[in-house]
Amino acid sequence: MPSQVSSEQILFTRGVPAVEALPNKLLSECMQAALEGPDGKTILQYGHNGGYLPLRQLIAEQYQVSPDQVLVGNGSLHLQDIFAGFLLKPGDVVFVEQPSYDRAIKTFRRRGAKVIGIPLDLDGVNLGALEQAIVQYKPVFMYVIPDFQNPAGVTTSAAKRQALVELAERYNFWLVEDVPYRTLRYAGESLPLLRDLNAERVITVSSYSKLISPALRVGYLVGPLPLVKQLTKLAEETILAPVLPTEAAVVEFHRRGYFASNLENLKQLYAPRLRAVVQAIKTYLPDVPFAEPEGGFFVSIMLPPHFNSANLLERAKQAGLMLTDGRDFFADPYSDSEDPRQGERFVRLPFCALTPEQIEEGVKRLASLL
Amino acid sequence: MPSQVSSEQILFTRGVPAVEALPNKLLSECMQAALEGPDGKTILQYGHNGGYLPLRQLIAEQYQVSPDQVLVGNGSLHLQDIFAGFLLKPGDVVFVEQPSYDRAIKTFRRRGAKVIGIPLDLDGVNLGALEQAIVQYKPVFMYVIPDFQNPAGVTTSAAKRQALVELAERYNFWLVEDVPYRTLRYAGESLPLLRDLNAERVITVSSYSKLISPALRVGYLVGPLPLVKQLTKLAEETILAPVLPTEAAVVEFHRRGYFASNLENLKQLYAPRLRAVVQAIKTYLPDVPFAEPEGGFFVSIMLPPHFNSANLLERAKQAGLMLTDGRDFFADPYSDSEDPRQGERFVRLPFCALTPEQIEEGVKRLASLL
Repeated sequence: MPSQVSSEQILFTRGVPAVEALPNKLLSECMQAALEGPDGKTILQYGHNGGYLPLRQLIAEQYQVSPDQVLVGNGSLHLQDIFAGFLLKPGDVVFVEQPSYDRAIKTFRRRGAKVIGIPLDLDGVNLGALEQAIVQYKPVFMYVIPDFQNPAGVTTSAAKRQALVELAERYNFWLVEDVPYRTLRYAGESLPLLRDLNAERVITVSSYSKLISPALRVGYLVGPLPLVKQLTKLAEETILAPVLPTEAAVVEFHRRGYFASNLENLKQLYAPRLRAVVQAIKTYLPDVPFAEPEGGFFVSIMLPPHFNSANLLERAKQAGLMLTDGRDFFADPYSDSEDPRQGERFVRLPFCALTPEQIEEGVKRLASLL
Repeated sequence: MPSQVSSEQILFTRGVPAVEALPNKLLSECMQAALEGPDGKTILQYGHNGGYLPLRQLIAEQYQVSPDQVLVGNGSLHLQDIFAGFLLKPGDVVFVEQPSYDRAIKTFRRRGAKVIGIPLDLDGVNLGALEQAIVQYKPVFMYVIPDFQNPAGVTTSAAKRQALVELAERYNFWLVEDVPYRTLRYAGESLPLLRDLNAERVITVSSYSKLISPALRVGYLVGPLPLVKQLTKLAEETILAPVLPTEAAVVEFHRRGYFASNLENLKQLYAPRLRAVVQAIKTYLPDVPFAEPEGGFFVSIMLPPHFNSANLLERAKQAGLMLTDGRDFFADPYSDSEDPRQGERFVRLPFCALTPEQIEEGVKRLASLL
């Protein structure tokens, strides 16, 4: 085994689920039950643009809201595109954590926003920097990933969650919390959602991409009723109608108890991979500080300035290691005058789709390049 | 039977397939084969944003293009939104047939276009009016539905197809042909696609919504390679990845020969419904000229000015007849100075989801209101 790992290319690029964890047999069974059940023809016809009602009911129950407060869309990026298109006009300001999810940054920009990155500490966004930026820029919304953040792996502390909703209330902006990884907790206890602290200021976005399958493209948004009504109308104008068979399969996946057992399988598969990446960093990069997450898909490191990070991606590729450009995760990779090259030195390590052996070999290769 | 029909509400509103024609059992079988076959896990993972490769290959073969010239999207409205977002900047002009598909008009407007309606004659767009408008407005593209047009039921003649591509070439604009109904021909012979006449000037859009199921949301676009490459990139930025299980089910539906047999079933179901609506118009509205289509979903009539069309929708509703507001299909319902109220007098009659008895009763009720 070790000799095999040592010769193969290792992909620390996309945050994708492990292929072996994709429940194709169970989903086949669920699809069959949905298509041959009493709703079999309903889920092939044009449907309500808010999504398949039984799925909206299921999500509504989970979040203790009305089904009309749930919009099911074609993956959460699609929903981000919709609410950004609705809330923003050109020149409006959006805050993101710095670093943040690269595609969200791009989406908000494409919708006309000026995107400002607020430095992310190991326990959530830096509150001093945030309040200063709020006063200066008056954001329309702030986009945060409070649990096992993509890319940094950071979980926002309870105190900072409370501070975020208080700031949103005082300065009148929306908080968008993106929580696709929240359920994938391998240790410790969940902290409250932002919406648990102030449901009127918060739009919650999540999806089944990491919990069942990305190719189902079933994501959802939960928010205040008047807003969700308008977003649902906009969804109809852009994609007309929902993909009902996949949404019905997700409902069936829950009904049969597969969601719970599949989640347990995912945790058992991913937890040792998280331990492997943490251990490998401590072994091969002992000087590098990083947030040690209790769940999710990502650990990330910020290489200290004394490391040689020049042409890192190219040199990594030559060593059989594929990395994502760290600058992509920074709304402004050169914004911090005290540390102007931080984006170049930021390395994200998605660990779920790699074996512990591949992870160790990958971090070792990374360390050897520095 | 007649007494039952005479008491029920009749919906001449949306162009939806007949529920009884939705092949839920066959699709269940196809889903199962796809999810338990060799690609079972691949179609649950993040995929290429251009769509499931075997489906792109299948469409490419049908249109005699390379698979890279095919972009599969989440229904054709989604693709219209993507190409409109890419091709248009605010203030650009788009031409549509007048009347045209209401949602396309809205989509182009939301993407910043000034939408101009070109009068549609019984054999396609009025060429004199078109050329005059081209010179005046210099459109970026013209959107046409050449086969069994929605809403008018008109099929563009061979001569007018040739004229359209010549005008597009001479005046340097794109033609977008939307052909979701083309395959549903109940009589006569197909005319060439616009892309058969000039593939470099034409973007072809279609979908499986009318041929298999709307809720699959599988639509596609075929065009010149450089354009499709850029649209594929934009698709990735908005929805990240395709819904692969439904796309794989469509491939399986073809492989097993179900597409051909299902199409035959649809034709056998819909052809008598088309005959019923044509016969009913001739019987109950003998003075009204209309395009008598050889396929598709729609027949429409333009009520002559001497009919009483005031509050038509409201009065129809009271008589148990649901109609769509004809003005929605007119980019400018009051544009024609010789006939300023034509949008109000335009009535679309989608016939596929109604039985011949319902169709006759509906047209009879309509006639009684005039």
